[in-house]
Parts: sequence; structure tokens; C-alpha cells
Amino acid sequence: MDKIFIYDTTLRDGSQSEGISFSLQDKLAITLKLDDLGVDYIEGGYPIANPKDEAYFKEVKSLKLHHAKVASFGSTRRADKHVEDDRNVTALLQADTPVVTIVGKSWDFQVTDVLKVSLDENLKMVSDTVAYLKSKNREVFFDAEHFFDGYKKNREYALKVLQAAQSSGADAIVLCDTNGGSLPAEVAEIVRDVRQKIQGMLGIHVHNDGDLAVANTLAAIDQGVRQVQGTINGFGERCGNADLCSIIPNLVLKRRYHCLRDGRLKKLTEVSRYVYETANLLLRPNQPFVGTSAFAHKGGLHINAIQKNKGTYEHIPPESVGNERKILISELSGSSTILAKIEKFHLTHDGAFMRSILETVQNLENEGYQFESAEASFELLVRKKAGRYKPFFNLQGFRVIVEKRENGLPITEATVKVEVDGIQELSASEGEGPVNALDSALRKALERFYPSLKDMKLVDYKVRVINPRKGTAAKVRVFIESQDEKNIWNTVGVSENLIDASWHALVDSIEYKLLKEQEMVSKK
Amino acid sequence: MDKIFIYDTTLRDGSQSEGISFSLQDKLAITLKLDDLGVDYIEGGYPIANPKDEAYFKEVKSLKLHHAKVASFGSTRRADKHVEDDRNVTALLQADTPVVTIVGKSWDFQVTDVLKVSLDENLKMVSDTVAYLKSKNREVFFDAEHFFDGYKKNREYALKVLQAAQSSGADAIVLCDTNGGSLPAEVAEIVRDVRQKIQGMLGIHVHNDGDLAVANTLAAIDQGVRQVQGTINGFGERCGNADLCSIIPNLVLKRRYHCLRDGRLKKLTEVSRYVYETANLLLRPNQPFVGTSAFAHKGGLHINAIQKNKGTYEHIPPESVGNERKILISELSGSSTILAKIEKFHLTHDGAFMRSILETVQNLENEGYQFESAEASFELLVRKKAGRYKPFFNLQGFRVIVEKRENGLPITEATVKVEVDGIQELSASEGEGPVNALDSALRKALERFYPSLKDMKLVDYKVRVINPRKGTAAKVRVFIESQDEKNIWNTVGVSENLIDASWHALVDSIEYKLLKEQEMVSKK
Repeated sequence: MDKIFIYDTTLRDGSQSEGISFSLQDKLAITLKLDDLGVDYIEGGYPIANPKDEAYFKEVKSLKLHHAKVASFGSTRRADKHVEDDRNVTALLQADTPVVTIVGKSWDFQVTDVLKVSLDENLKMVSDTVAYLKSKNREVFFDAEHFFDGYKKNREYALKVLQAAQSSGADAIVLCDTNGGSLPAEVAEIVRDVRQKIQGMLGIHVHNDGDLAVANTLAAIDQGVRQVQGTINGFGERCGNADLCSIIPNLVLKRRYHCLRDGRLKKLTEVSRYVYETANLLLRPNQPFVGTSAFAHKGGLHINAIQKNKGTYEHIPPESVGNERKILISELSGSSTILAKIEKFHLTHDGAFMRSILETVQNLENEGYQFESAEASFELLVRKKAGRYKPFFNLQGFRVIVEKRENGLPITEATVKVEVDGIQELSASEGEGPVNALDSALRKALERFYPSLKDMKLVDYKVRVINPRKGTAAKVRVFIESQDEKNIWNTVGVSENLIDASWHALVDSIEYKLLKEQEMVSKK
Repeated sequence: MDKIFIYDTTLRDGSQSEGISFSLQDKLAITLKLDDLGVDYIEGGYPIANPKDEAYFKEVKSLKLHHAKVASFGSTRRADKHVEDDRNVTALLQADTPVVTIVGKSWDFQVTDVLKVSLDENLKMVSDTVAYLKSKNREVFFDAEHFFDGYKKNREYALKVLQAAQSSGADAIVLCDTNGGSLPAEVAEIVRDVRQKIQGMLGIHVHNDGDLAVANTLAAIDQGVRQVQGTINGFGERCGNADLCSIIPNLVLKRRYHCLRDGRLKKLTEVSRYVYETANLLLRPNQPFVGTSAFAHKGGLHINAIQKNKGTYEHIPPESVGNERKILISELSGSSTILAKIEKFHLTHDGAFMRSILETVQNLENEGYQFESAEASFELLVRKKAGRYKPFFNLQGFRVIVEKRENGLPITEATVKVEVDGIQELSASEGEGPVNALDSALRKALERFYPSLKDMKLVDYKVRVINPRKGTAAKVRVFIESQDEKNIWNTVGVSENLIDASWHALVDSIEYKLLKEQEMVSKK
């Protein structure tokens, strides 16, 4: 089995994404995750004039990594300087990493018109820097910036740059599609030519501007490239870098290459979500392999077929990348979908019960409910229909007031009255808005009876106007995502009154939490 | 220039996405957008046992489409039935579309083990159905479901299915990668073989489970396929269908194929965002070609380089797909757009004024405002900055109360106090929800002073949570569309408090109405 070396640049190129700013602690935590996953190289940052990255390289040395080597990243020496006097190159050495990756220009136009350096001097900048770093016993990778665009304009010069790096001892020559616009057929053809001119390890580093980063990476590997640079979730500037969460399973499961530590592919989904969470970004549900919808099935016919044979509608087993199958409830689905769900709740079911559930779901969907993204509400619905549900509290009433005075900020206040086992509780709370105030008043009222509600928080809130043409009298659907230490669950509420719709979703969310806890206790 | 036919299935396969549920009005509105863009075929739905799609096919006939043909979608006849007695095939004819696309199985295992039909009967089901629909003068496309998986397992049978469709007169044979797991090299090899066996038009329909849908589509086109099936934004089940927003610009700008109506590629970004908005999904900032970050650049050297030569850091000119360059942090984006808008208001402007407007817009956009779909709010903003605006009323305060008793419906009440030329007015109103109550109380208070407000109504109301990870304390953006006898206008409001955000959008909407009226009067 051929080995492909995985070079992760989430912490360096990935952090160029709009809206991403990793703290030092974030970077160290992600480093541990990547090492456990088993990537071969972790590019930690750009130590030059960047105190956070400088601190990273200091701290990372005290982590016990099992597998990965840490790389620092920088440019070739400046024009007309001795390499040993170059501040940037010195900073790379001070980072004290086993691997140093340097980037240099390989597009003639960029050399003469952007860098304003002669073509010959650029070649010397490359070879001096590589040779110097090699003399300091580093593993040295050379990133040939804009290589594919450069090759298309001036093949001879682009190849000369690679040769300069190679003959000075670079351990890998990495071909970069910096603008991300190349097509797979071009990449294949160009890499094939390079492969004939350059001995030793070749790498590939592409961006996704043409929506082809994964394909371009695979095309390069088909031509003999053995190092892949990319990021978790495809983070990176503009349209991002090549997504390792897609490339790795394609290589391992479909092409039978060896990547990562043995048995670790199953951690991929967890790592993807961990990195989203650390970056404070919402995950992309339809992301291939690791997305929450990547193995979600909706159509009724499909569900039948999946139960018969899983390979029928799935290109890989979801568990191979640590993901899971998801059966969606929707107007398109027949009873087989719902049956599959109900089985998960361990409820006995006869035909009449099934039909009544189906009818209820259809009626609610006509009213504007959607259960496919609100499984917790669906489970509560089924349990209630089955007579397997005893309410945890009764609402006696709530009131929400939003008040605004001339030029002032609005003030929001909610009061909630509930009853639990004959005991009434009245509570009041302010909030950022009416739903926030209602949410916190309700919890305040219930925490006396159910202290574990303190562990739970709402992490996502969505509002959708269902029949917008009715203006402000339109019906709204609210989705709420909640989480505690172990689980994430979703609930839905619908009403012409936004506060009331939110209320229904809030109540479902709390009831579901209490229900799961009760189940845990009764299992013990 | 070779023509590639674009077959859009956003409304059918795309609506299988988790969380997407288009209303009839949504589907008709998207049809008009797609037609204007110039796709060749619009697959409108699945008329069988689906009242919404049935209604769509009835209504779509009254739309005046300039270019696109509408297609209905269904399966081949059932086993052991006469095709003319088949309810599903009859429904396809009743949909009365110029094009009918039928899907049939081409993987032997699916035929014998899922459908439980003999291999021969399946071939007859395909040829009967195609021949019958052809006899009814339809343009007939045959989608060979699971073709690539079928070919890999039983090449001979998979090809037989295609031949059955072709010899019965199918106008195009569409090769489907239903599970979305094929690699570009496999697709190329298999299509090359098919091309030698099957004459006439070939199509390609792939899913994105391997993150390779765009590349697989391009690989098929390289082998002679001329019809591309896909969806706007890659909507679709699991990881989605092939994204037409990536495929079309790759084909047009990089391969010089002819797609879409002349000059319409520039509408692509607008269509992408319109479809997101209609589906009420957040757009993906890093989506290739059409994403808001697709051409985002950081400051400094990069910007300089871009100004020297745009090709240096951009694979295509952003305006070719109707997108725009975005300069992050240090520079201001869209100044020419804003300049052009300000000119429309006949305001004189010097450099300092322009800079202050740009700064205000950028600050508000950082807070979550968006003026692209709220030009009325933008115009009010510019007039206020220019000192060319005198308020029509002052808010002294409002109060909204939502109250709910045990098992009762919620009651909503709003009071509003305004002042116009020294005269105070207090009014109260009930409503379906808090915004509706506030809206009607505000109008009630103002109609005494401005009777023309009676002509105006709110026709659309949208809520979007901007930073959903903050749960119910998240910031929300509200869009309101209003109309009177002559005009339609849009306004926006942003706040952590939904009532307050709605209030800002409501007030803008009313102020804009009064402003336009004042202008009319002063022109007379």
C-alpha cells in the first residue's frame, strides 16, 4: 500500500479564512487533535513578525506528539541579502521546528513585476535559502507559489525554479495552484511533465476557487505526487484550500492509499467538528463525508432500499469516517421512514398506530412544521401519541413585555408561571429580546425542580417565515438547537405569533432534556 | 463554440435537501429566474401523488418563459403493467410538459434485489415507457439511475439498459452517479466506453458525496457529454447535486463552451443568492464563483498586486459572474456601486461625503445590516447623512405585550405613542403576533396625520438570525417589503431584539412611503 504524506496547514493557510482567528490555546489544542488523527506534518504558523505564532512554536515543543512533525512557514530570503543576515530566515530557524517550508515565486511575471527582482536573482534566493536551511539540519519543503499559472505562461522558467530548489537539497517540491483556477486535466498534464524533470518527493497545494481542489489533488497523486497539503474543512482564504476531510477518505477508501495512523480514519468526523467548534463557525451540513447530512436520506423509496442493502444508496459506510446515517422525516417520505425512526425509540407499533402517526405528521407539516431537522420534537410527538409521556411541568401562563422610549434601547421582560407536582413557581427575567427573556424566565422557574437544566444551553436559533406574503401576520417556524455535555438536539415550533412559536420549541427542548435524563436514571 | 445544454433540477432533486421545502409560489418564482438566466431545461417536479407539484405544472403554463423548457420527472412503468394503464406514466402526461424525464434502473442488483423484477422485464419497462412517451410527442430524457455503480458491477447489462432507452427513441441518455462516489478518472473511462456504444445526446447527473461532482461533470464533458444536470448552489440530498454555479462558469470562462442566454452569466451570483433567500438558507461565504468571500482579499501587498494586475490573485474577473471583489479591513468595498446609487438620488457629493457614507455603510454591515435587498433603507440613510431629511414623526415610545394562559392562545397587544408637529397621539392595537400588533398600532397613530398610509401594505416579512451560535440572544436582521398602488420597496432593521429590529424596518418603510409622496407633491 503506497503511502501519501498528509501536510496540514489549517493553522497557517487555513487561518487566513475570513472570520477565523485562532488563539494560542486553540492552535495547541488543534495540534493535539491533528497529531492524534495522524497527519504527518502540521504547519503551525508564520513566525515572522507574528508574536502569537512565535509563542506557538515555543509552546508546541512541550506537547508530546506521537506522530506529526511541526513545520514553520516563511519566504525565501529577500533580494540582494546574504541569507544568514535575513531576519525572516533567522526567525524560521529560531522557531526550532524539525521541518521548515519556504515559499518562493515560480511565475516570471510575479518575479519581475510584483517582487521587482531579476529572474536570476529569484533563482538564487530559492537555492540560497534551501541550502542554508538544509545546512542547519532541517527537513526543507519548497512551495512553488503560482506554479501552475507560471508554467502556463513560461514553462521553462517555472521548471528552473523547481530545479533550483531541488539541486539545493529540498526534501520535497510542492506545486501550488495559488489562485485555485486550474482544471484537473491541466494539473494532470503539467504534473506529468514535472515528474519527468524532477526527481524525489513532489507535493501538491491547491485552492478551491474553481470548486475543483479535491479533484486537482487526486489528479496530481495519479501522476506520482506523494505529499498533499490541505486544511481541515477546507478552511482558507477566498474559497478555501483543498479539504483534507474529503481528500483523505477518497485516498484511503477508494484508492487504498495509506494515510493517517492506523484505525484513525474513524476520528475524521470528530476532528472536523472540533475544528469548526474551535473556529466558532457553523458546520456545513452537506459537507461530503463529515457533514451532518452527508448520509441523510429523505425519499420514502430510498429508505426501503437502504434497509435492504446499505451499499445501494451510500458510497461508503458512514462509520468508516466516524459519521452516521440519518433518516429524515418529511412530506416526501412514506411510512418506511417513520417506521425506521420509531424502531430507534423501542416502541412497539401496530399498523393503526403507524397510520395515526403518519397522519399527525402530515397534518402538522401542512400547518408548517418540519421534523426533518427537529428529531427531538418528533420523538416527543411519537411518545405522546403512544401514551408514553408524562409531562414534567404545566404552564400556567407567561407574559412578555417589550418597551421602548424615545431614542432609548428597548427593555424586555418576561414572567413565567409553571406548576410541578402541585407546586407553583413564578419567575421573571430580562433578556436581549423577547425570546431570550422568555427562555431565561422559564429555566429560572424550572431549575428549582430540575437542577440539571443548568447543564443545557441553546446553541442555535432559526426563524423562518412560512407564508411571507402575509406580511407581519405571517406564520413563522422556529428551530432551536440545544446541547448539554453529551448531546445535541433540535426542536421546532410553529405559530402566527413568533413568541408562541419560540415557546413551543423551547418547551420541547427542555422536555427532551428531562426525558433523556429520566431514561438514563431508569437504566441504572 | 460548442453548446452544452443545462438541465436544472433545483426544484426537483434540489428540493430533496434537508431543510428545503419550496412553496408553490417559491417554485414559480425560481422558474422565472432560471428562465431569465437561460438554462435550457427546468425540471419542475414529480407530478405523481404530489399535489404541490401537480399545481406547479398547471400554473407554470401561464408563465411566459423566454427560453427554458419545463420537464416533469417520474419513473418507468411498473412491472407487468401495460404502460398506458400505468398511473405514474399517466400523471407525467397530465403534467403536460414539452419534456418528460424518466428514471430507470441500470444496476442489475437494484433490478433483481430492490425492484424484484427480472433483468429482461426491466429492459421492457424502459423501452415501453420511452416509446409510449415519444408516441405522445414528448421530448424524452432517460436518467440511468446508478449507472456508474451498475457499470462497474455488470458492464454488459448497464449498457443494455442504455441501448433499450436509445432504440426506443430517447432524446438523451443521462448517466447518473446516484450515490455520488465515483472518481473523475473512472467517470472519464466509463463515459469513453459508452460514447462508443451509444449514438446521440448523452447527459451527466452526479452527486457530490466524494466532493467531486464538478470534476466528474467536467470529465464527462471532455468525453463528449453535452447535457449537464445540476442544481443552483448544489442543493440536493446528502452532499448535494453537482453545483451549476461552479460548472457553468468553468465551462464558459475556462473551456469556452456556450451555455445560458447571451450576456446572462453576469446574473449568476444574483440567481444563487435569490435561491438561497427563497430557500431561507444562509449562503456559503466561501462558495466558489458566487460566494461573498470568493474574491475577498486581505490588505497590504496583496491589494497592491491586485491593483497592478488583477489576474495575479484572481482566477477569473469577479464581475464576469456578477460577483465583486471584496477588500477586507483596510479598504472599502463596492465604492463604485455606492457612488452609482448616490447619483440616482440627485445628491451632490464631494470626496469627504462619499468617504463618510462608505464608512457608515461598512460599520452598519459589520453590525449585520445588508443594503443589497433594502434600497429604501439605503436611500434614507444617504439622505439623513446629507442633511436632506426631515423626520415625519417622532417616536415617544412603544410597548408590546404577549400573554398566554394555560392551554390558551396567546394574546398580543401593542401601544405606540408618536408626536407630529407638537401633537401627540397614542394608539393601541391587537395583532396576530408582536410585530403585526406593533405595525397596526403605528399606522393607526399616524393615519390621522398621513391618510395616504392607508394605501400601503406590507407584503413580505423575513427574519434571519445573523450569529446563530448565540442562541436566543443572537442578533437578527429583518427585511420588510412594502407596496402601494405604484411602488414596491424594501427596508431592513438589525438588533439583538427581534421586536426592535422589526420596528426599525417598519419605520423605514413608512418614512420611505411618506418621502416619495412628498417628492411627488413638490414636483407638481
